[in-house]
Amino acid sequence: MANSIWESYPPKATDDQLEYLAQKVKDWTIFNGLTVRPNPSFIKDETNPNHVLATNAPVTLYPSPFPRKCFEQAQCLQKVYNELYAAIACAEEWLSEIMKELIEVDDFLANLWKIHLQVKKEGYVQDLTLGMFRSDYMLHFSDDNAAPSLKQVEFNTISSSFGGLAVRVAQMHTELASFPQPGQSLAYPTHDLFGTTSAPTLPPPNHAVQTLASALSTAYTAYGPSKSSPTLPTCILFLVQDTERNLFDQMALSSHLHQTNPEIPTFRLPVSKILSHTSIPSTTDNPSRPLIYTNPANPTLRFEVSLVYFRALYAPTEYNTPTSWAARHHLERSAAIKCPSVLLHLSGSKKVQQVLTDTTSPILERFLPHASKDDLERLRSSFAPQYSMSDGPDSEGVKIALDPAKAESHVLKPQREGGGNNIYRGNIPTFLRGISERDYKQYILMELIQPPKAARNVALRSDGQVVAGDVISELGIFGSCLWRSGSGNKGREGMEVLENEEGGYLMRTKARDSDEGGVAAGFSSLDSLILYDE
Amino acid sequence: MANSIWESYPPKATDDQLEYLAQKVKDWTIFNGLTVRPNPSFIKDETNPNHVLATNAPVTLYPSPFPRKCFEQAQCLQKVYNELYAAIACAEEWLSEIMKELIEVDDFLANLWKIHLQVKKEGYVQDLTLGMFRSDYMLHFSDDNAAPSLKQVEFNTISSSFGGLAVRVAQMHTELASFPQPGQSLAYPTHDLFGTTSAPTLPPPNHAVQTLASALSTAYTAYGPSKSSPTLPTCILFLVQDTERNLFDQMALSSHLHQTNPEIPTFRLPVSKILSHTSIPSTTDNPSRPLIYTNPANPTLRFEVSLVYFRALYAPTEYNTPTSWAARHHLERSAAIKCPSVLLHLSGSKKVQQVLTDTTSPILERFLPHASKDDLERLRSSFAPQYSMSDGPDSEGVKIALDPAKAESHVLKPQREGGGNNIYRGNIPTFLRGISERDYKQYILMELIQPPKAARNVALRSDGQVVAGDVISELGIFGSCLWRSGSGNKGREGMEVLENEEGGYLMRTKARDSDEGGVAAGFSSLDSLILYDE
Repeated sequence: MANSIWESYPPKATDDQLEYLAQKVKDWTIFNGLTVRPNPSFIKDETNPNHVLATNAPVTLYPSPFPRKCFEQAQCLQKVYNELYAAIACAEEWLSEIMKELIEVDDFLANLWKIHLQVKKEGYVQDLTLGMFRSDYMLHFSDDNAAPSLKQVEFNTISSSFGGLAVRVAQMHTELASFPQPGQSLAYPTHDLFGTTSAPTLPPPNHAVQTLASALSTAYTAYGPSKSSPTLPTCILFLVQDTERNLFDQMALSSHLHQTNPEIPTFRLPVSKILSHTSIPSTTDNPSRPLIYTNPANPTLRFEVSLVYFRALYAPTEYNTPTSWAARHHLERSAAIKCPSVLLHLSGSKKVQQVLTDTTSPILERFLPHASKDDLERLRSSFAPQYSMSDGPDSEGVKIALDPAKAESHVLKPQREGGGNNIYRGNIPTFLRGISERDYKQYILMELIQPPKAARNVALRSDGQVVAGDVISELGIFGSCLWRSGSGNKGREGMEVLENEEGGYLMRTKARDSDEGGVAAGFSSLDSLILYDE
Repeated sequence: MANSIWESYPPKATDDQLEYLAQKVKDWTIFNGLTVRPNPSFIKDETNPNHVLATNAPVTLYPSPFPRKCFEQAQCLQKVYNELYAAIACAEEWLSEIMKELIEVDDFLANLWKIHLQVKKEGYVQDLTLGMFRSDYMLHFSDDNAAPSLKQVEFNTISSSFGGLAVRVAQMHTELASFPQPGQSLAYPTHDLFGTTSAPTLPPPNHAVQTLASALSTAYTAYGPSKSSPTLPTCILFLVQDTERNLFDQMALSSHLHQTNPEIPTFRLPVSKILSHTSIPSTTDNPSRPLIYTNPANPTLRFEVSLVYFRALYAPTEYNTPTSWAARHHLERSAAIKCPSVLLHLSGSKKVQQVLTDTTSPILERFLPHASKDDLERLRSSFAPQYSMSDGPDSEGVKIALDPAKAESHVLKPQREGGGNNIYRGNIPTFLRGISERDYKQYILMELIQPPKAARNVALRSDGQVVAGDVISELGIFGSCLWRSGSGNKGREGMEVLENEEGGYLMRTKARDSDEGGVAAGFSSLDSLILYDE
């Protein structure tokens, strides 16, 4: 029963209907900015030397079914998660313990940690941090007849993207399902999940753009007046990759912010221009280290940056120029509020996620002293079991990993950010026996999430191909949190949460190319939801 | 002085500023649906086999200066013009006189007229007509020191396009001019025409989409209840070309209508599907000839068409299949309101425009019995002098055309719709001496409009090339009119105007490649206005 909801979905369309649907989606996406710049593998630079072309973002043609209870649970969890990660980012001492191990296996995290230590030594001049988060989940069926549960895949503390486009996908699916009227759609065949003309079921409204833009505006205001002398107008910088194909997702936020708060200027700053377009006055002139931004289009206009919103510099591969690390350090030591700070960025590492799942330690209670028992229980139930591989041959993780029967329901993941392939199931014991035991600590063992087996959907790829097949989906919930870290880095103590919001979702659906057991492979499309009650 | 306003415009930008501006425009256009499907000369079909790519509509980077007085005059004239052309479309007898001559030179107009006669014989079943108009003007300087005046180039009675995109261009220029704040722009250098921070001058708001969508909704409502039995839900059809690159302009109207009037379904009907997707019940079953629309995506849903909005079948080249004329006849005889009817389509021919300029006849007074003297005078002052070439060797037109000195300020235009090249200035007498006198009637002689010589702008083409140079601009004003034609086709008598609106503008700016004297050549970009007082 639990899995059976997917067996008749999406409803079977005629060729004419599918053609109509695909054409509608091709036109709707372009008209509504649900777009990306085309991948060079689709459109070569020499065809498009001035980089003007755009195409639809990859989208599913139908919203995907999702149990209402699990969706609401994910929404409920968000503010708890927001506060948890805010508290972690404040717990410098606790993080430093975790970093001891990570520094050995991961240069990237080691470099980030070094920046923190450098700025700590100089003294931080900004005690506010903004988190714009996305907590990603998958549905898990422990067996075919079990009720679905929600398992967290990842908690994103930097560059949580696709909020802008996800809102548009939900709008698009809603329009498709309700034209000419709800329950009587040209694009979609009737299906129980869509309800009836009098009681239609449509994708839940998606408020991701409002939530995220409001977080930007709150942080901008919290920065307060200019610290420069003479004072300068303040602004928000969107830190972006030099070659960004997903810019329209980002523009959804800046454009919404411009409409609701026209007094807040936002600028796009490509990573390669950080050091040339921004500067910090010498500390003898101004010890508060304001970050000054000047755009060469009009050098007479100078701004003080109240917030740097990172949509770049999240992955190791982005630090590929001699000045990348200097640029990150430059931003970190400035007075601008960072979304995220280096400590918050580090808090999103896989090792932290694994440590949190350790049920033997009162770690959640420590970081969330005010959370209810129910909240903590819900939080724990959303963890997929994970195990450290650093605790020696007698530890639970190593024992499971080396046992062929137990390994069958697990995946071994490299700890390093952006590093290496996952090892699945029966391959784990063999793999571990082939490496030295002291290298085990480079990995984390995770129980495999079992998504619905019968899930199917149809996607329109960015090159216009319509592909149907078995799929795996991930639900992301957006949230934001603005906090003031206390002195002494004691975690919760002294930390002040100024704003904590939940709002908006992202559904991402990928082709289930191979049985990678919960780690989706291949092509990913933006999707929305049709909620159902079990 | 009059012409000098253009000499310092657009203000000189630095390379950095121009690069910033072009990039902003490339991104803004895609994000806001100011887009077109790319021309096959830019992107070949084999590169883009699924037709998903889009690119920016060609746009100017700066709004173009325009004298406020002339802009306001054009706005004032619109409702007078709307009513004039409504009256002409009702004056079947008067039109038939004009058609006598046109039928001989123009198969296209002859075929349209034949459709009218056929439907007249069977009996019209719809006495409402919707006009969605655009009156196009150029600025005229009779000499270098003269004040500019407004001269009509054309009055469009069918498929008046670009309202949807023009609104977005005005928004874009406004945002560019006022970011981070009005009078202090990153994208534009300061210039007197832009005003100051405290008193900025921005493009006038453009209400074309509201005006046009509201006209569609008014006509939809005026159609009234279904004439079918059993009754059907009513709808609007956008009749479109099978291969339409400008669909996002059209979607701006349907999307706005959907937002303001969600109860009105609109469908896009490609010309090739008119006869397969629409039908008229046999007149014995239902003498009122409702037009029934069914979309093959869901054949169980049937609609009765209250309005056919033509964004196709305006040009002779579109009637290139064996069934094109049958399809036009099929729509014309139906009960659907047509925008436009065949008679209104014919009223937009060049010959009608020329006949109206004849100052020796009381033709305007006849069609506009309630117009004030001032209105009529303003109307006449907007006519560029035009002359018939059908009235023999002693007529004014033929005399001017054969006089090399006088011909120097004129252009000879073929009367046929979409037919042949214009002949300019000194070439006119030579050309006429080379053809038979009885072929003179295929032409109309028109005094050349003298646009500002120093006008310059910079455009972003759809292939991303930025081109700067001398330009010629045309201002179009949108308007709409819904009327009930009286019995007897006596023109004004018995005709009832139900709605007459003016609203929104289109500025189109083209490279002045060669001295074609008022008839703009080459590449055309969408533009907006910066008004100035003389």
